[in-house]
Amino acid sequence: MKKNSFTTDDHKYLQVADGLEKMIAEDVLRIGDKLPSVRMLSEEYGISMGTAFQAYYHLEGRGLVESRPKSGYYVRFNHNRFRELPDCIEPTALSHEVSVKEMIASIYSDIVSDDVINFALAVPDPSLVPAAKINKSVVHALRNSKNHCIGYENTQGNAELRQQIAKLSLNWGGKIKPNEVVVTGGCLEAIMLCIKAVTKHGDTVAVECPTYFGTYQSIESLGLKVVEIPSDPSNGIDLKALQKAIKKYPIKAVVAVPNFNNPLGTCMTDDNKKKLVELVTGNNIPLIEDDIYGELFFGKSRPRSCKYYDTKNLVMYCSSLSKSLAPGYRIGWAIPGKFIDEVKQLKRIQNISSPSLTQAAMAHYLKNGRYEYHLKNLRKALHTQNLRYMQALIQYFPPDTKISRPAGGFAFWIELNPQLDSFKLRTEAMKHKISIVPGKIFSASIDYSNYIRLSFSKPWSDDADYGLMMLGKIIRKMVGNGQ
Amino acid sequence: MKKNSFTTDDHKYLQVADGLEKMIAEDVLRIGDKLPSVRMLSEEYGISMGTAFQAYYHLEGRGLVESRPKSGYYVRFNHNRFRELPDCIEPTALSHEVSVKEMIASIYSDIVSDDVINFALAVPDPSLVPAAKINKSVVHALRNSKNHCIGYENTQGNAELRQQIAKLSLNWGGKIKPNEVVVTGGCLEAIMLCIKAVTKHGDTVAVECPTYFGTYQSIESLGLKVVEIPSDPSNGIDLKALQKAIKKYPIKAVVAVPNFNNPLGTCMTDDNKKKLVELVTGNNIPLIEDDIYGELFFGKSRPRSCKYYDTKNLVMYCSSLSKSLAPGYRIGWAIPGKFIDEVKQLKRIQNISSPSLTQAAMAHYLKNGRYEYHLKNLRKALHTQNLRYMQALIQYFPPDTKISRPAGGFAFWIELNPQLDSFKLRTEAMKHKISIVPGKIFSASIDYSNYIRLSFSKPWSDDADYGLMMLGKIIRKMVGNGQ
Repeated sequence: MKKNSFTTDDHKYLQVADGLEKMIAEDVLRIGDKLPSVRMLSEEYGISMGTAFQAYYHLEGRGLVESRPKSGYYVRFNHNRFRELPDCIEPTALSHEVSVKEMIASIYSDIVSDDVINFALAVPDPSLVPAAKINKSVVHALRNSKNHCIGYENTQGNAELRQQIAKLSLNWGGKIKPNEVVVTGGCLEAIMLCIKAVTKHGDTVAVECPTYFGTYQSIESLGLKVVEIPSDPSNGIDLKALQKAIKKYPIKAVVAVPNFNNPLGTCMTDDNKKKLVELVTGNNIPLIEDDIYGELFFGKSRPRSCKYYDTKNLVMYCSSLSKSLAPGYRIGWAIPGKFIDEVKQLKRIQNISSPSLTQAAMAHYLKNGRYEYHLKNLRKALHTQNLRYMQALIQYFPPDTKISRPAGGFAFWIELNPQLDSFKLRTEAMKHKISIVPGKIFSASIDYSNYIRLSFSKPWSDDADYGLMMLGKIIRKMVGNGQ
Repeated sequence: MKKNSFTTDDHKYLQVADGLEKMIAEDVLRIGDKLPSVRMLSEEYGISMGTAFQAYYHLEGRGLVESRPKSGYYVRFNHNRFRELPDCIEPTALSHEVSVKEMIASIYSDIVSDDVINFALAVPDPSLVPAAKINKSVVHALRNSKNHCIGYENTQGNAELRQQIAKLSLNWGGKIKPNEVVVTGGCLEAIMLCIKAVTKHGDTVAVECPTYFGTYQSIESLGLKVVEIPSDPSNGIDLKALQKAIKKYPIKAVVAVPNFNNPLGTCMTDDNKKKLVELVTGNNIPLIEDDIYGELFFGKSRPRSCKYYDTKNLVMYCSSLSKSLAPGYRIGWAIPGKFIDEVKQLKRIQNISSPSLTQAAMAHYLKNGRYEYHLKNLRKALHTQNLRYMQALIQYFPPDTKISRPAGGFAFWIELNPQLDSFKLRTEAMKHKISIVPGKIFSASIDYSNYIRLSFSKPWSDDADYGLMMLGKIIRKMVGNGQ
């Protein structure tokens, strides 16, 4: 009978591990507690010794338990221990010109540096990407595409790739057709084209705050004004504040990242997504949805997108393969709803079309069904890294540190001692070849000067450990010095 | 002694052919004239029979002579026969908002159609491109690049590619360093970034007229005003008109295509280029130079660029590999002089960077010195096609047709009977699956409604012959019908 309570071997160890994880989270099992032996666990749950081992191995991989030689397994970590989340600051909700900082150029200059311990970059580590399989798809594309990809691709994008992108929409409940998709040079280009398609110079756009600095730069570069809507680590964009802003300002578009918002890592609930769509599109305003992190969930299932709740074709969905597969391929897309013709035209004016080869290669890769398998591994790796990094942060950073609990994606949003200036922290850290992103650049009006975004995209390593230890030291020293 | 008058076998036949070509051009040898036999030619010039054959074979390839079975060689064509060039129309030199036509979307939709006889597209035919060699470079890039090109390239572009682009500048007399180059998604993106770097919303930009419609669209899309400066098929941009315009309007940038201007095919003289640079930069205005056709000369040597004459670092040079190698790779570049930081920042805001793989592949291709060899063949093929198409135009089009004499590039600028509306001509032609570009879209203010741009980028074929014959018929019919 006991045997029947589990359906497959694959589920057994996970169910046991989940049970233990829950007990740790609820402090039933506390840090330092000795866990049942493998034999005891096997008897208790009616599972084989091998399965019991697998359960502990799984928890160890996630940094929750540790094995001590000749002694057994112990609870090592409880990710509910740091209960306090970073504060949500109310933006001064004035419509104002965006001003963007030079810091961003310096952060991007680290992109290709090998000798920096990079906690700034939020992209999958090369070791987590199936390069050999992608290479095969490139060679396939060279051999099998029309004219070996020498000629222009059409502006809207490779037909097979759009078919595959349409298929990906099933993951978030969408029923998108290939001709609703426009391929772009990454998600940032998609967002910029979408904003531009629905605004003219001098218009006002609402964004959640804090948000990805690239979005602010796009808006500034288009000569638009911005209204910042507060977003908090638990619930995402504040719908009441947004409602007020819509009444007060002539808002022409809203830009939001409902799934694993960068830098907060928040995932809005389905209910809130629905309300967000109703509020924005109900006022006949296009909602530009950045879903670039949507596939990188740590939970049980892929969250829905706002586009799913869009009944008016006013949600302009943007995403890419840059965070989940290959940033260097620069493959993004927009599903711009009723503004598709405008977006296509703007893409043509900007650079005619994206490269033929990279599109054909990604189309082939996606078509072979390899993406889902890769994503499973990537999510698992990121979740494990998330827990490992969290442990180290708790160990090395001062106790007044507040850390977000991202439900997906790559990064922590960290609030440090109010005395600390994270621009100066970055400068100090770079002396030790450690790169982080100061919080200040995630808002146009709020002074997030004691916040940082810290990415856990690099697999755990001695370098990462050293980097976080050094960061902790530098922070303590700076706070101690009264700056 | 005779033998010594020629240095290499390669030069012998070309020199003989050039001599004959000159005599044809000057009507010393007239259409229909019998040419000396191969034996006579060999004796006359003191060359081998083989070399004499080669000379005739070369001229035949260019459509200038034809061999008649058992009779010998005859003069077939004199490309000076149509003496009249298309008219240069003075634009109404008012500063005004650009208005751009829907026609462009339709033209670009032909880009990937196989069943259209395409006289619209001005890119190298796939048969003229060394696809196998490029494929090898892609595979090399996959194997030898850091992380197999999975990661972001830096915003400024692949270092080896910038090195190679810097080397290409030697062709036009430049001494450019790799760190002066920014890699872009084709030439159009380069031009747009350069214009944006030196203007703000509402500013005025001067362009030569007629010019590439993409340039007008970029300007419109940036919210800028345009002043059109007349350009004629013989001399290019009118320097006096430009001088007047600079006095009259607050011009913030000048955009020009000094080498083989699209659609005119004009190549400005070195002297005029120097004057253009002095005039524009002397007024402290940046000159945005589009040199995309510079390598596609039919003459003896690569023309210089305006950048060569730039002493103030105010010329922003733009080019790409799209017209000379592989449009689908979307590799262009800007050499923006003193505005390099602005251009880099705008590129980052737009799409972070261009794809890693296509850049690495093109860097490898260029490094292997294969580009020069390819260009030699491409130029020869285009020149031959130019002459073949010209013959057919003379044969099929009404005698009042005026045709430009491009000195390089891909296209004829053709003035038809004033009664003819080339928008309607395109519609009629498309019924027969023949695509051309109406002249109207090459200007914002001038009514080039009886002009067309006709590309000779497709190698001569029965299809091309049929297409031009049909076009001729349609034109005659439309003019006959009084429309």
